Amino acid sequence: MLVVQKFGGSSVRDTERLLNVARIVTDTYKQGNEVVVVVSAQGDTTDDLIAKAKELGKKNSKREMDMLMAAGEQISIALLAMAIESLGCPATSLLGWQAGFVTNSTYGAARIKRVNAERIRTELDKNRIVVVAGFQGLNRNEDVTTLGRGGSDTSAVAIAASMHADLCQIYTDVEGVYTADPRKIPNARKLSEITYGEMLELASLGAQVLNNRSVEMAQKYNVELEVLSSLNRVPGTRVMEVAKMEKMLIKGVAKDTSVGRVMVVGLPDEPGIAFKVFSLVARAHVNVDIILQSVGRDGTKDITFTVPAEDGADAVEALKDFCERMGAKDLRYDTECAKVSIVGAGMETHEGVAAKMFEALADADINIEMISTSEIKISVLIALADADRAVAAVHKAFFETND
Amino acid sequence: MLVVQKFGGSSVRDTERLLNVARIVTDTYKQGNEVVVVVSAQGDTTDDLIAKAKELGKKNSKREMDMLMAAGEQISIALLAMAIESLGCPATSLLGWQAGFVTNSTYGAARIKRVNAERIRTELDKNRIVVVAGFQGLNRNEDVTTLGRGGSDTSAVAIAASMHADLCQIYTDVEGVYTADPRKIPNARKLSEITYGEMLELASLGAQVLNNRSVEMAQKYNVELEVLSSLNRVPGTRVMEVAKMEKMLIKGVAKDTSVGRVMVVGLPDEPGIAFKVFSLVARAHVNVDIILQSVGRDGTKDITFTVPAEDGADAVEALKDFCERMGAKDLRYDTECAKVSIVGAGMETHEGVAAKMFEALADADINIEMISTSEIKISVLIALADADRAVAAVHKAFFETND
Repeated sequence: MLVVQKFGGSSVRDTERLLNVARIVTDTYKQGNEVVVVVSAQGDTTDDLIAKAKELGKKNSKREMDMLMAAGEQISIALLAMAIESLGCPATSLLGWQAGFVTNSTYGAARIKRVNAERIRTELDKNRIVVVAGFQGLNRNEDVTTLGRGGSDTSAVAIAASMHADLCQIYTDVEGVYTADPRKIPNARKLSEITYGEMLELASLGAQVLNNRSVEMAQKYNVELEVLSSLNRVPGTRVMEVAKMEKMLIKGVAKDTSVGRVMVVGLPDEPGIAFKVFSLVARAHVNVDIILQSVGRDGTKDITFTVPAEDGADAVEALKDFCERMGAKDLRYDTECAKVSIVGAGMETHEGVAAKMFEALADADINIEMISTSEIKISVLIALADADRAVAAVHKAFFETND
Repeated sequence: MLVVQKFGGSSVRDTERLLNVARIVTDTYKQGNEVVVVVSAQGDTTDDLIAKAKELGKKNSKREMDMLMAAGEQISIALLAMAIESLGCPATSLLGWQAGFVTNSTYGAARIKRVNAERIRTELDKNRIVVVAGFQGLNRNEDVTTLGRGGSDTSAVAIAASMHADLCQIYTDVEGVYTADPRKIPNARKLSEITYGEMLELASLGAQVLNNRSVEMAQKYNVELEVLSSLNRVPGTRVMEVAKMEKMLIKGVAKDTSVGRVMVVGLPDEPGIAFKVFSLVARAHVNVDIILQSVGRDGTKDITFTVPAEDGADAVEALKDFCERMGAKDLRYDTECAKVSIVGAGMETHEGVAAKMFEALADADINIEMISTSEIKISVLIALADADRAVAAVHKAFFETND
């Protein structure tokens, strides 16, 4: 079996952790598997390098920042290869470019165009464990690029996809994907399986176990993922196609507190006015999430929508002139809200799900301000202060009762 | 003019030093020169990386050690490029392989086979300053190699040679090459010019300003070198062919205390016995320096020779059986000696030089135990305890008097 294993920066932060990872890798190898290991920079290396660069200037060249950052994984791959060899197994480390990662030229957030995995294959054929630098590649000018946040997950999936690996294991500091954040909800359950779509919704809703690009890529190329802990050797959560799964309706409850709400109050109730609002926002490259439209008794229209909190100022700026011209009564913005969602494939065919969620919130005296649904999730916007209580109440209704 | 400038680890050890180097580089650039900068890893980076590796094992793979070490220059080139850009000049950093360094596969001490400098040329043609990682290259398997101690000097000279640079400046923490170690001899004078051959003798005698391989390469490809300080902006010492120089007979006094002396006492005085001794030593890969043979009154022969102190044990080991078989009286080894030398091209045609040196030593009551001469140097072996006094006396005779 060809297995790709990915370990993040905290998993390799010191000698002890490096040896722990080396034991996981060599155990997999000794079971007769071909193993490709993808690794991030050690613990604080990236932050240290960024601090050094900041001393030289606030606006450093992005090309040079990528050159600098890429040294981090170079250190960790060499050390991990040594750790593996110290346990008696042959290992070869490869930089992003040596492993065949070709990216575009967007320094700091490059996208992988392809992985030419011949060199990895050659090393595997020599019965060696291959340790690959995650997060980095080479553009067509032969300059070093980095993939941006969470890039090592994507590196691992890209290798798994291009080599048709049997499994891509993403090791983290949690044991898998849970029905809710286990630090907040003590009764949160670890899921044994989840679909790519559910994983994407959970990640975008703040569960932050896997990088979204890596899940999208896994889905596209049908790479079976497993999220598991590098510290406790127990099975994690498998991420796969719907077809392969045993059914379980609801997969989890997620909370997103980095949400902002834009309210445009008292617009004229004319056809096309909503279109106008959202095209202005789109032009500012702001993604709109939940939308609420209401017509007031005085013949005016209110439009409320949520955006990622970091884009709030841009959204308001984009609408200012328009609101003035249209004689809108008010243009408000606040971040005193949170989005709580339940995620599960196939819930659209089960009407009871929404009712059960709303009932749980009502019983907890939590007011629902906006609602949004998709094939695999139901989200509600509530007051920020109620967020944790809401997650607890919804989790209890779906996962801690016997019906 | 195309200028190659090389800066060592201490010259770029922190932000302040990086900006100092950036100022030297940009000043050279603004004077209308094309500038290629070769830089080593920052101050303690290499030691830190070695320490991390040691925690994992005593005998790490040399390939992986090179992969690890090479991250050091990757950090320094990116930071220096940023520092240069912060001063308003365009800069591009290049790793060893990007700069075209092809080496053999002797990890940790690789030799440069060639520099394919097209990429450097392309960047210079875009009016950019090019910052190249010293000390590293790529072998034919596309694996990262390092050149070993002093490798960055060699990197700089190799670029200068392959691009036919007009000058290769090696920046250090001293202002140039002196007639003696200026920390020990307050009256030591800085030389404005020196030949490659003299530089090689001084380096091998412990002056340690320039790496020997780099001087040999400079001589072979006729690259004009300048050794100068990165902290004080004053002219340094130019290293060049004899033909280009104004004459100055003696260039310096050097001391080498890492010398060991092997004494084989009481060998039979037979033809070929010395040949036998030295072929055994050569077979142990030990370089012999000064040799003294003497025939005793009892018809036996004593052979004494010096070797680098680190090879002393090997030399003795190589001779043990032979000495027993030949009935030698004794096989002794000690390191209580030092070699003091004067260096200067053309001294062989000036017999007064040796006499002057011996007189200075005699006046200081220092006993000469062995003597060796070449075209450009005279070396004497003396007691270790006398070494500093000997250097001072010889320096005074040649450089601090008016005759």
